[in-house]
Amino acid sequence: MGAMTAPYTLILLRHGQSVWNELNLFTGWVDVRLSEKGKAEATRGGELLAEAGILPDVLHTSVLSRAIQTANLALDAADRLWIPVKRTWRLNERHYGALQGKDKAQTLEEFGPEQFMLWRRSFDVPPPPLDDDSEFSQVHDPRYAGIDGEVPRTESLKLVIDRFLPYWESDIVPDLRAGKTVLVTAHGNSLRGLVKHLDGISDADIAELNIPTGIPLVYRLGEDLAPLGPGEYLDPEAAAAGAAAVASQGKK
Amino acid sequence: MGAMTAPYTLILLRHGQSVWNELNLFTGWVDVRLSEKGKAEATRGGELLAEAGILPDVLHTSVLSRAIQTANLALDAADRLWIPVKRTWRLNERHYGALQGKDKAQTLEEFGPEQFMLWRRSFDVPPPPLDDDSEFSQVHDPRYAGIDGEVPRTESLKLVIDRFLPYWESDIVPDLRAGKTVLVTAHGNSLRGLVKHLDGISDADIAELNIPTGIPLVYRLGEDLAPLGPGEYLDPEAAAAGAAAVASQGKK
Repeated sequence: MGAMTAPYTLILLRHGQSVWNELNLFTGWVDVRLSEKGKAEATRGGELLAEAGILPDVLHTSVLSRAIQTANLALDAADRLWIPVKRTWRLNERHYGALQGKDKAQTLEEFGPEQFMLWRRSFDVPPPPLDDDSEFSQVHDPRYAGIDGEVPRTESLKLVIDRFLPYWESDIVPDLRAGKTVLVTAHGNSLRGLVKHLDGISDADIAELNIPTGIPLVYRLGEDLAPLGPGEYLDPEAAAAGAAAVASQGKK
Repeated sequence: MGAMTAPYTLILLRHGQSVWNELNLFTGWVDVRLSEKGKAEATRGGELLAEAGILPDVLHTSVLSRAIQTANLALDAADRLWIPVKRTWRLNERHYGALQGKDKAQTLEEFGPEQFMLWRRSFDVPPPPLDDDSEFSQVHDPRYAGIDGEVPRTESLKLVIDRFLPYWESDIVPDLRAGKTVLVTAHGNSLRGLVKHLDGISDADIAELNIPTGIPLVYRLGEDLAPLGPGEYLDPEAAAAGAAAVASQGKK
């Protein structure tokens, strides 16, 4: 892993394939579970951690079941079920607004590639807001009863970063500074936001970054919490294939 | 469930059958996983909670994998994976000292029924201490690196209560007083200690109390945190059969 003398270790893990990933639907805050393939990916993620000897001391997850399932399966495989855990809506996937529940290929066909990519990859253009009466709305979900402010109806990547960074500062940074190896299990867009922050990627360039599912991405951070080098996937070949698969989503 | 007007709700859940329960071995602090039967019990426990509409807002578990697996499976079945969780060694099973890893039937035969029941059910007689060099010792387990005082080498039920009650006061009581429905997933003896405390059972009478695996035990507590009635199992028939099975352990 290179810089073993680095003071801080941060592990990012995107949840394995969900049932809706498999069906090629926009998911966002809809609480869809892992598919069987996703469960296997999560277990494999934990095995990779154990094989590399990079064992988390503390876990941060979103409040979405697919990230929690991923963490539970990975920690089981790494024999670290017992570590402390914090869950926060601030690590949730981007809220996909009115696209939640829609087929990605159909959406691409209906709105054309330009609008489709704008919603998926633009930095600050959110999709149209989701109606509160929609079956895919979270405004009445008890897990969000206590959040600061309103439950989102849609989000851009910028809004995801705006709600994630305060948690990074208040909860994750103190764990890192305490010398703990920190595992974050979250989602494509919340992790893209974190990587953007860590690697100082521009608003334009972040569009090209795709994070594969189920493969631990390990950062060594210096005293100033800046990365000492690029984040390293514990299975680089599978990561490259996985990132390409994410990039091609929406295509039939 | 009767007293629906009671201010506080506490759910106790003993972990499902472990691989060593199945083999009839003393387990204690040895970190044995659930058997397939135990996993099914845990899922059933969560289904019972969902059917009864008694949904936990917060979880407290031991740091032993079998209790954490039980919580994860039960919360998955009840669609409450997202609730906050705290883990503590103070909810661990009783440390069984030199008996850890030993066959219960063999131990009964070797030491006779009187000594056997004294170790299993006396209030304040711990088994002989476990040697630190034993493969079943926890003195070098990283999950106990930060505990107050020394890692136990053996415990009586009295010592379990002595280490559990401070956590009850400091962490569980505040959650109850905040109006949260609290789920505690733990072990035969840590839960016996809690029931002894709640129901005011004498040091002598607690010997007769057996808690079955995998069946939620629901207490309604009044303002003074005293139970408003007896704890109620969500599947009373299965609970009675399960308690009888626990009582007969050690017999061939």
